[in-house]
Amino acid sequence: MRINFADRLKEAVEVKDSRLVVGIDPDPELFPPETEGRTAVERVDEFGRRILESVAGEASTVKFQSAFYEKLGPPGIETLAEHLKTAHRLGLLAILDAKRNDIGNTARAYAAAYLNRNAPLPFDALTVSPYLGVDSLEPFIEAAAETGRGIFVLVKTSNPGSGDFQDVETAGGEPLYLRVAKAVAELGKFDIGKCGYSSVGAVSGATYPKLLTELRRIMPAQIFLIPGVGAQGGRATDLAPAFDDEGFGALVVAARSVIYAYRDRGGDYAEAAYEAAAYLRKEINEVATAGRK
Amino acid sequence: MRINFADRLKEAVEVKDSRLVVGIDPDPELFPPETEGRTAVERVDEFGRRILESVAGEASTVKFQSAFYEKLGPPGIETLAEHLKTAHRLGLLAILDAKRNDIGNTARAYAAAYLNRNAPLPFDALTVSPYLGVDSLEPFIEAAAETGRGIFVLVKTSNPGSGDFQDVETAGGEPLYLRVAKAVAELGKFDIGKCGYSSVGAVSGATYPKLLTELRRIMPAQIFLIPGVGAQGGRATDLAPAFDDEGFGALVVAARSVIYAYRDRGGDYAEAAYEAAAYLRKEINEVATAGRK
Repeated sequence: MRINFADRLKEAVEVKDSRLVVGIDPDPELFPPETEGRTAVERVDEFGRRILESVAGEASTVKFQSAFYEKLGPPGIETLAEHLKTAHRLGLLAILDAKRNDIGNTARAYAAAYLNRNAPLPFDALTVSPYLGVDSLEPFIEAAAETGRGIFVLVKTSNPGSGDFQDVETAGGEPLYLRVAKAVAELGKFDIGKCGYSSVGAVSGATYPKLLTELRRIMPAQIFLIPGVGAQGGRATDLAPAFDDEGFGALVVAARSVIYAYRDRGGDYAEAAYEAAAYLRKEINEVATAGRK
Repeated sequence: MRINFADRLKEAVEVKDSRLVVGIDPDPELFPPETEGRTAVERVDEFGRRILESVAGEASTVKFQSAFYEKLGPPGIETLAEHLKTAHRLGLLAILDAKRNDIGNTARAYAAAYLNRNAPLPFDALTVSPYLGVDSLEPFIEAAAETGRGIFVLVKTSNPGSGDFQDVETAGGEPLYLRVAKAVAELGKFDIGKCGYSSVGAVSGATYPKLLTELRRIMPAQIFLIPGVGAQGGRATDLAPAFDDEGFGALVVAARSVIYAYRDRGGDYAEAAYEAAAYLRKEINEVATAGRK
């Protein structure tokens, strides 16, 4: 039986007691020297597997960055499929961070690739970009709802240039990202789980924590996927407004600061990733549950 | 030696005397019955090759829709790589319509996949979505300029819902898509070819032809990639404002109305695609060169 994505996510968060999402951005240029001497595909394959195994107890979810697999050509997509299987075998939920967006039957083809029942790469959720409008999001939302999967729509991204268009003041006085947030809240009503959250979530960068209170007001039923902690300068301690009274409602993503933690901590890279993930898991839990009633 | 993408495109348009881009959206559900009885990958492989061969004399460029290949999983990406080789062998320029978008090192990884010198899938150009801001576009632009490749930034898309965010009135009174257009014009100055056009082009839907005059004023050096002719309701005869006095400056995309033309015209699907492409090539040429001095 289909279970709503937000309900599945809440269970995973409670079982693991973790709101941490480890971002898998496998970039051979950042790998430790001991992984050298083989093909890039072999190196990415082993690096990803070891990272997944090392963080599986600390993270509820992992987020694969599609670009680093696409960069390797067709064998990279094979590796992505294998990493997805590994993540699921380890009991992790898996998001594909692919920021896909297109219209009509093309959006349906993307959904068929990642969200449909017989998808060749059956991720639990997919990130989606909103520039093309509401009708471009609907095929993703419908596909996800049907299979108990989810999407996260980009609302306010973590990069310095996110203001260029997302912050543009509209004629009504509000920035564009609030318009997008309102549309996401409306679309998300289509599939609300028992936990009160929707299978349609929102991406909001940790680098703009002051916006979280307003975004939460506009999107009460959206799970926030919050990237930008660590290497991009965002701090977990600023993210309290994203969480509800039960310590749910948001997932915090750390990628480079976990998977390349060996560069600061030294030692084995998988061990360093485990330690960084364990530290972050606790830090996020303290923030998320500080206001718990 | 690197040749600017716009110059390469202009040469291809002149050699073929064609501003037509055939969109390759291989959807097995729309294939003719004679292609049945094999795997979806085999069917897409053969369909794509036959279409490419049949339209190679009529189109300067083909545009592959990534979603329909991703839908087939890893073997689909192998097929995409083979179709790309076939297109190049036939003397066609090849655009990947993937609407990629991401930040910093992730955007660079996408560029490495499709635009860099040693890209595993070396397309001549890539479509890119602007919601993440100028800093998210720069890595694509730099990579493209270095290798004589190009990008097309989504400015105003062809779908009915494109107005939801693209048409939002900003505080200055202008719609958002004009803000994006201005940013694209500015970014495009980075790499202007001898022909006066930039390797940074813009997507503007044929379904909104009245906007072309204003978009051309704001983006004098952008090649317009114009989808939406045919199945989506756009008409080639409305597109004159996109072309310059030499009949250059824009490419017109037709996908379903060409590759599935057998459904209206009957007969062999590749032959029907050839006839539809030949008809459209002439129709577009008449529009493009009507104002030629």
